[in-house]
Amino acid sequence: MAGVEFLKGHGTENDFVLLPDADGELDLTDALVRALCDRQRGLGADGVLRVVRTAKLADAPAGVEAAEWFMDYRNADGSIAEMCGNGVRVFAHYLVRQGLAQVGEFPVGTRAGIRPVIAHADGTVTVDMGPVTVFGRSTATLGGREYPGVAVDVGNPHLVCPLDGGLEDLDLTRQPGYDPAVFPRGVNIEFVRTLAPGKLRMRVHERGVGETRSCGTGTVATAAAALHLTGHNTGEVTVDILGGQVRVTVEDQRATLTGPAVLVASGTLDQSWWDSFRAS
Amino acid sequence: MAGVEFLKGHGTENDFVLLPDADGELDLTDALVRALCDRQRGLGADGVLRVVRTAKLADAPAGVEAAEWFMDYRNADGSIAEMCGNGVRVFAHYLVRQGLAQVGEFPVGTRAGIRPVIAHADGTVTVDMGPVTVFGRSTATLGGREYPGVAVDVGNPHLVCPLDGGLEDLDLTRQPGYDPAVFPRGVNIEFVRTLAPGKLRMRVHERGVGETRSCGTGTVATAAAALHLTGHNTGEVTVDILGGQVRVTVEDQRATLTGPAVLVASGTLDQSWWDSFRAS
Repeated sequence: MAGVEFLKGHGTENDFVLLPDADGELDLTDALVRALCDRQRGLGADGVLRVVRTAKLADAPAGVEAAEWFMDYRNADGSIAEMCGNGVRVFAHYLVRQGLAQVGEFPVGTRAGIRPVIAHADGTVTVDMGPVTVFGRSTATLGGREYPGVAVDVGNPHLVCPLDGGLEDLDLTRQPGYDPAVFPRGVNIEFVRTLAPGKLRMRVHERGVGETRSCGTGTVATAAAALHLTGHNTGEVTVDILGGQVRVTVEDQRATLTGPAVLVASGTLDQSWWDSFRAS
Repeated sequence: MAGVEFLKGHGTENDFVLLPDADGELDLTDALVRALCDRQRGLGADGVLRVVRTAKLADAPAGVEAAEWFMDYRNADGSIAEMCGNGVRVFAHYLVRQGLAQVGEFPVGTRAGIRPVIAHADGTVTVDMGPVTVFGRSTATLGGREYPGVAVDVGNPHLVCPLDGGLEDLDLTRQPGYDPAVFPRGVNIEFVRTLAPGKLRMRVHERGVGETRSCGTGTVATAAAALHLTGHNTGEVTVDILGGQVRVTVEDQRATLTGPAVLVASGTLDQSWWDSFRAS
């Protein structure tokens, strides 16, 4: 089938269409991104990762020249996003599988700047998530109940609420309540249960989205909050989420997130299908 | 990428993973079907169409020998289904695109027996839907309102309710009420508005599924009911559905359904991904 090359993959069930475009020649319109991510009319995904050489990128942000490869990430609605913690794992794993990068540490260019990653031989990838800051206490409400929690900043705002039990029974189809004085731009809300020392289970309601199977910054916030509540500022924690399991290491100045990356399939988009959306 | 060949396509947004398997060698377990249809962990689809030569099929039903190709259809939950009106269009279109069948009429083997199809040069496909019978009147209820309708049998039961307006406002996230004395095994319920003579718009609540973007037998039932209500037993009607447009011809002894078939992409499933689900 003549057409445009693609791959499909996921990181803890946050799924992506990858478009290899080393020379930056693809004319990727918003309409094409929406069609690619459409789960009935297209391939279906949460977002698109265009894989382009940084040197070939027409609109490269300043400071990313040191990264050979740039992750041009688009949300399913066609909008441009700066970063995606799950996406960058799939991106890095793809580079290694294709022989475009080697197992070990290398930089990935993103619209949020250079993001260092470590690709492991087992297919997992460690991503530097930047600094994480516990900045206070607040309370979520859900189904008439109050859930005291810890406010955490991971570049975006989180409220992490520990539970003793009943995690599976929460109805996260509804927007939990929160204090807009603490979170004026909204908040991602995590409910978390400690399974064993250093082992957590989490569900997350993402701001503007609803419950998701995976939220990279949410697992980092959850790990930092759990460490904080047991009197630690640093440490290593595994977090079970609906989409799988990740490992978070909280250090003084930054946190890292290690998780799986899966490539499901590769192939070619039908040229007439692609052309039918290019013009629209 | 070494692995198993696939295609992704849809008929009026009812979407499928096709698995070319001419020699009947694929060991397609329920777990693999579920993984393929999983929209985050797999490719994502409403069902799987295995494309196998009838002569190579281990468990071919009696009477399908005249069809060179057999559509082994599986629901997303892994169960075997007899037929799928939207799927058979995608199946036939694929055969023609691959040069395995010619534009024109040819038989397709299914678990419901031989199904004659006509593949057109423009990519649309006409499918013989068998006999359609208007067998009475009944009433659906929704949101406290009653909707008088026509009971129709297309191999499965339908209740077609004409509306003067307000089709877009119906809340089909809820199960409409119906008379279990008329429909002891449940019923597919269509709400339909006449846009112009011979031109209908329909929404459908599928038995056991909920609202869908496309229901082949539902469009046939709707066409037959609309013709019946205007004093006709035969005729040709176009039906707009959420997933596109189809054309239904009702004859004395049978109905045919003509609609689009789209191939989105083709490629290879990653062998290690496939193997990870084969054992489970």
